[in-house]
Amino acid sequence: MARAVIIGGDAAGATAAARIHTSVPDAQVVMLEQGHWTSYSACGIPYFVSGDVAEADDLVARSPSQHRARGVTVKMHTTATAIDRDARLVKTLDWTTGQTGSEPYDIVIYATGAHPRTPDVEGLEEFGLPLHTLDEGVALRDQLLARGLSRVAVLGGGYIGIEVAEALAQRGIDATIIDRGSQLMKTLDADMAEVVQQRVTELGITLRLGEQISGIDRDGGRCHAVRTTTVDGNTDTEPVKAEVVVIALGSVPRIDLAKDAGLDIGPSGAVAVDSRMRTSDPRIWAAGDCVESLHLLTGQPVNIQLGTHANKQGKVAGLDAAAFLRDGGRGQAEFPGVVGSAVTRLCGVEIGRTGLTEIEAAAAGIDYEAVTFDGSIKAGYMPDPGNVRVKMLAQTKTGRVIGAQIVGDGPVAKRIDVPAVWCTVGTTVTQVQMMDLSYAPPFGGAWDLWQVAARKLVPALGLVPQL
Amino acid sequence: MARAVIIGGDAAGATAAARIHTSVPDAQVVMLEQGHWTSYSACGIPYFVSGDVAEADDLVARSPSQHRARGVTVKMHTTATAIDRDARLVKTLDWTTGQTGSEPYDIVIYATGAHPRTPDVEGLEEFGLPLHTLDEGVALRDQLLARGLSRVAVLGGGYIGIEVAEALAQRGIDATIIDRGSQLMKTLDADMAEVVQQRVTELGITLRLGEQISGIDRDGGRCHAVRTTTVDGNTDTEPVKAEVVVIALGSVPRIDLAKDAGLDIGPSGAVAVDSRMRTSDPRIWAAGDCVESLHLLTGQPVNIQLGTHANKQGKVAGLDAAAFLRDGGRGQAEFPGVVGSAVTRLCGVEIGRTGLTEIEAAAAGIDYEAVTFDGSIKAGYMPDPGNVRVKMLAQTKTGRVIGAQIVGDGPVAKRIDVPAVWCTVGTTVTQVQMMDLSYAPPFGGAWDLWQVAARKLVPALGLVPQL
Repeated sequence: MARAVIIGGDAAGATAAARIHTSVPDAQVVMLEQGHWTSYSACGIPYFVSGDVAEADDLVARSPSQHRARGVTVKMHTTATAIDRDARLVKTLDWTTGQTGSEPYDIVIYATGAHPRTPDVEGLEEFGLPLHTLDEGVALRDQLLARGLSRVAVLGGGYIGIEVAEALAQRGIDATIIDRGSQLMKTLDADMAEVVQQRVTELGITLRLGEQISGIDRDGGRCHAVRTTTVDGNTDTEPVKAEVVVIALGSVPRIDLAKDAGLDIGPSGAVAVDSRMRTSDPRIWAAGDCVESLHLLTGQPVNIQLGTHANKQGKVAGLDAAAFLRDGGRGQAEFPGVVGSAVTRLCGVEIGRTGLTEIEAAAAGIDYEAVTFDGSIKAGYMPDPGNVRVKMLAQTKTGRVIGAQIVGDGPVAKRIDVPAVWCTVGTTVTQVQMMDLSYAPPFGGAWDLWQVAARKLVPALGLVPQL
Repeated sequence: MARAVIIGGDAAGATAAARIHTSVPDAQVVMLEQGHWTSYSACGIPYFVSGDVAEADDLVARSPSQHRARGVTVKMHTTATAIDRDARLVKTLDWTTGQTGSEPYDIVIYATGAHPRTPDVEGLEEFGLPLHTLDEGVALRDQLLARGLSRVAVLGGGYIGIEVAEALAQRGIDATIIDRGSQLMKTLDADMAEVVQQRVTELGITLRLGEQISGIDRDGGRCHAVRTTTVDGNTDTEPVKAEVVVIALGSVPRIDLAKDAGLDIGPSGAVAVDSRMRTSDPRIWAAGDCVESLHLLTGQPVNIQLGTHANKQGKVAGLDAAAFLRDGGRGQAEFPGVVGSAVTRLCGVEIGRTGLTEIEAAAAGIDYEAVTFDGSIKAGYMPDPGNVRVKMLAQTKTGRVIGAQIVGDGPVAKRIDVPAVWCTVGTTVTQVQMMDLSYAPPFGGAWDLWQVAARKLVPALGLVPQL
């Protein structure tokens, strides 16, 4: 009987497991998960911490017993410690019992995810709360609820850090965000991030940009303050008083096991795969936060950790692995790549981005023109027309849309999917100007916001027709 | 000095006038407008009637004096009565003074718009209130405010009729919608319109579907009731008690002048133009509600009356006419055509549609598969996830997306622009499945709603890969 071993029971792994089980019903599918949960929405954790989502269970799409009921063998609290490719064994450790074991395989799905970046600072292990797994979300929320916290430091000014700071501020807790960069939300260009930054400070959240943690000041057995310095580490800055430090510095792909097993690691630092998610070993597939994907605009591999990619990649990997198990063939699905689409809602504003920022375009050596402007979400004469800032980038000469960003007071985030499609299919600003995009006064002016951007870019790029 | 005469001072005409004046500064541009307003948002009229927009002036983007300040000669209350192509004269009538005149031209922009459909029923001239021009909107609102109306009949269950009925219901006035069809919102398929219909009835609005007006019952000098019959006219149905009758039966292109002048009228019943909006007379361009456009999915001409098209067509016509005035050449812009995108918000739901409905696809002889399903706007575990119904059509064999509809409790209307782009560029459901559309829990699940639709259509069409 064919045997598939899945390392990791979240979005990518569990999706692949289900796909293999459906496609090759007589295969034995064994899924190893080191945490307490399977198939949960990691993207939902901030909403659980904020209390918008009441129970951790609400975030679970499919529990271990549900997976088992569908015919997948699930081993919880079980870490894969090595992949022995010669013997075709995955070595395991149940960290609750200390028991080791090994799982023979015909194929492996490597879906280990990512682990949070943690600065090497004494005391952070004790007082630092990472926020990456659901277990960590539960721990953070327990702390917030159980202890009368009054001051919290948040390391990292990305979307998770801001989201946590917002949840803290809403509970009346003083929150300070410490970030090495000169702006929050580095996934946006500075002129767009500035809108978010203003909202963050309006909520009473303190920003310490261009600084980094250098230590923890204790007072008795407790955390008293976070010591900080300038980014070069040369100058101390004023310590940030805090009882707890939330660590939200982003995550790095969890590749140790793959690296030890001799699988190819790509230039992005994640596991290298082909378009059907197969690694350099023809019996091992990888999917989710641990892999790299082709960026369709730069042609370069990138590691973008998002549940939407993990789900798609899990399907593709599962289909290809199933075809291999059946007759050594290949699956029919391919993961074509990404354009960097992302949305979120923070501090009352909706945020969307796709394609390349100015910094990303410059780094990729792509010549471009960019426009940024402020507008309204509805027709200007409607009540509460709503502020929105829009940015679009187009490539010099070709006029192709290569990036877009939007930040607004109302429901604008999902509007980013329109330029996301343009970035994917290679639409030019000249074409954008005349597309049949929808219009009614509750949703904007007669020229859609993206068309306003295109109309500004056409002359900037020296293209025609200039409307 | 070159002379351009613009017939009609709303979106299409005024846009063309401005474009010609900018491109050929020494041309004399004369704009004839028969109403009291120029460059106003016709799409905003229902919001003025409902009171969301306080003043009629708020809907005016550019007043006659603003046009004059920019160098356009504006003649208000002036109807064009004939185009004498041999003498190159537009005959005019100032209906306030009765004075006739004529305007010599080198080129004409024909932007006469459309006029409301009005049934030929005795008494309707007296008690019927059309709602097409801003003047009519002002008259309707005056009636609503000035008289203690308690019962109003609305002819037509399209978006304007529903919008007015909603505004009436909100003012505590009994509203009854009378429509010949078997459903409201005939721009949607029945399975989608049903959601809107339910909301309409929940507001206490009475629906009389499959009926038509046959007369007015008077009581003294007043309207007492609307007499109605079945659609075949054979059977009287119960009269609808009403003091006023709002006429919202849609509009037909205003082509009389063009027809009298011998210009080509297309099969849609609107003025035929080329892709640069030139009519069959090389000195006359037409734009806006009075022209027909190429439907990009059927290849057939259609008349779609929307401000967004009028604006674009006005630009294209203006650029082409300006090139003709300069050196007899052609403009650089083309209006490529439409895919039927439209959005609105009615009775608490947002509505979007693009491409072809099932009825339209069948009429065009296009084989297709369609899926309709209910989902949530946010991730299912978020508070108030919001109901949404989604529909998508794809062409048999090619798998191309050829239509989409969405109706939901939250901000979903503008999501229709994504399938609008797919309809325009020819994207297949197979491609849709793997596109990098944005995802975060406040905005949906890991698979975007359109991707859920595509994943249902792929197997229905016998395509691969089936995820």
